[in-house]
Amino acid sequence: MSLADWMRGYDARDWQTTTEGTVRYALVGLGWWTTDVAMPAIEESTLGETTVLVSGDAEKADRLAERHDVAHGITYDQYHDGVAVDAYDAVYVATPNAFHREYAETAAELGKGVLCEKPMEATVERAEGLVEACERADVPLMIAYRMQTEPAVRRARELIEEGLIGEPVQAYGDNTQPLLEMIPDADQWRLTPDLTGYGTSVMDLGIYSINTTRYLLDRDPVSVQANMASNHPAFEGLDDERSAFIMAFEDDVQFVSTASQNAHQDTQLKITGTDGQIELRPAFHGEAALHVAAGDLELDVAHGTSDEVDEMREEFDYFADRVLTGAEIEPDGRHGLRDLEIVEALHRSAASGEAIDVER
Amino acid sequence: MSLADWMRGYDARDWQTTTEGTVRYALVGLGWWTTDVAMPAIEESTLGETTVLVSGDAEKADRLAERHDVAHGITYDQYHDGVAVDAYDAVYVATPNAFHREYAETAAELGKGVLCEKPMEATVERAEGLVEACERADVPLMIAYRMQTEPAVRRARELIEEGLIGEPVQAYGDNTQPLLEMIPDADQWRLTPDLTGYGTSVMDLGIYSINTTRYLLDRDPVSVQANMASNHPAFEGLDDERSAFIMAFEDDVQFVSTASQNAHQDTQLKITGTDGQIELRPAFHGEAALHVAAGDLELDVAHGTSDEVDEMREEFDYFADRVLTGAEIEPDGRHGLRDLEIVEALHRSAASGEAIDVER
Repeated sequence: MSLADWMRGYDARDWQTTTEGTVRYALVGLGWWTTDVAMPAIEESTLGETTVLVSGDAEKADRLAERHDVAHGITYDQYHDGVAVDAYDAVYVATPNAFHREYAETAAELGKGVLCEKPMEATVERAEGLVEACERADVPLMIAYRMQTEPAVRRARELIEEGLIGEPVQAYGDNTQPLLEMIPDADQWRLTPDLTGYGTSVMDLGIYSINTTRYLLDRDPVSVQANMASNHPAFEGLDDERSAFIMAFEDDVQFVSTASQNAHQDTQLKITGTDGQIELRPAFHGEAALHVAAGDLELDVAHGTSDEVDEMREEFDYFADRVLTGAEIEPDGRHGLRDLEIVEALHRSAASGEAIDVER
Repeated sequence: MSLADWMRGYDARDWQTTTEGTVRYALVGLGWWTTDVAMPAIEESTLGETTVLVSGDAEKADRLAERHDVAHGITYDQYHDGVAVDAYDAVYVATPNAFHREYAETAAELGKGVLCEKPMEATVERAEGLVEACERADVPLMIAYRMQTEPAVRRARELIEEGLIGEPVQAYGDNTQPLLEMIPDADQWRLTPDLTGYGTSVMDLGIYSINTTRYLLDRDPVSVQANMASNHPAFEGLDDERSAFIMAFEDDVQFVSTASQNAHQDTQLKITGTDGQIELRPAFHGEAALHVAAGDLELDVAHGTSDEVDEMREEFDYFADRVLTGAEIEPDGRHGLRDLEIVEALHRSAASGEAIDVER
């Protein structure tokens, strides 16, 4: 294949199995991510349509439904009672972590597919309950790892599979942000232990590094080590305002990572092999840029339109494609559950100072 | 200060206490680093001169002395016997790690200053012996951390001290190289346990990340965690063909790092604070380039002539300056000893899977 062919195919939907059909969504949880990113992404998608908005606040659900020309605005209680059940085929769950299970379980009972935001729940036990409910009802369940449908990530994975960087040796993932500058509220759910689950920096930020590295390496970790600290008063009751961790993957591939909810914004993902290197920087927010080194040759790929709405559009169409055709979902519930098990082990390692075996 | 002033002062010798005098060096160990980097650096220095070359091989010492117009070429035995003792004021020790002590001890006995390559010895115990010998004889001892006289590193340290990035939160250091492509010999000393000491990737590469981070943060680590692996047959008997580690520094600053002797070449050092970020990339080999982010503003500084010879020239003149005036040496023997204690703890952590306390 020439570089010209490769560039033309850069954002090709290599995962697509159908271009026909529409999945109608109920969006559960109407925070800024849902209204500002998910709704425009569904609007731009080819296989999706928003038909129901679900909120704890009846007035908010009505108001947003009217503003965005969505047929139904309903409350959580109405959702659980099956109101407007014929108006949607699948639900997108974007509530605080600790509420994912209850909305997914209702969806499963109603026979609807579930696209659930990451991390999939607050604890491993609750995540298991969520997965099992979907499996019992035999409804499609996907965890919303939007990096897995980001073209830069998919092309990076192909290059690694093709052996361009030789054998993977080491990786580094970084995801930091100044949360309290972005959302100046110490009572927000990401800082509320009962709602976020296992802390905040790994659950909310480190999970990008963890999951994307699992995806790129096509390997799982076998042991983890971590250090965590919280100093700022807004992080009281949470272990990990900041976190640093090591994950030893299969084949002795070593991964080191940092995440912080109280630092200058930066994202970077780097995989070094025996013969080259693949890097995404920025990696997780906004445009993902791909840097590739093989021997003495280096190459940079910037993708002008690869913003979060685009990534979410690809994610929604991937999910809709699977709902419509029944094709296999790669980031399924068991895949997302693995991340939660890893996050839980990281917290245990930080508390005990000991490496924790996470091999299956 | 304006940017113009800052640029004009970028490579100023802010450490200099004299411009008068000459230190005459005996160079001990005539590998490629000594002949290709250290000798040209001394040649370019303002306060140094090479007057004696010391090798295990009499013919090699003679040949190189003649080629480089150096007055004396002597053997290790002759060196220990005090041959040409009046021809030099200080020694530069660049032998395999496990021989540093014996050459430094002879220098101390002869009343000569010692500039000793890093890591300073093969083990903590031997390094302690080296330090004590120099302290007993009251001769200057400096460990050759050339990054500490690299202008990019000194300017980075000032920016951190000035608070440009706010409070330091996390750091990342990476140093990888394909050793067996660079030196295609499985029997080289860096791969020989008795000569290198505590393994190879941390001792030879990780030490750059460790020491430069200590220097930039002006803090020491309080606990360490590590993972190490060796797969390639050339690394038999060594724990760490590749290494990944966490160091928790004072004030909960978290540092993660990777090093490998069998991977694509890459060096990066990054320090993220609450309000900004300082990065060196490349960091440790060749030109050190400085990237600075503060809030929304980013700035890149490339320094065209900052190669290893230049770094070593600055290092030799820093050392000569201290020998001539008796001013304090920042990377002294106790400073270098701390790194070896850290390296030893990293190996213990990798073996036990437990975090190791390294607080003093």
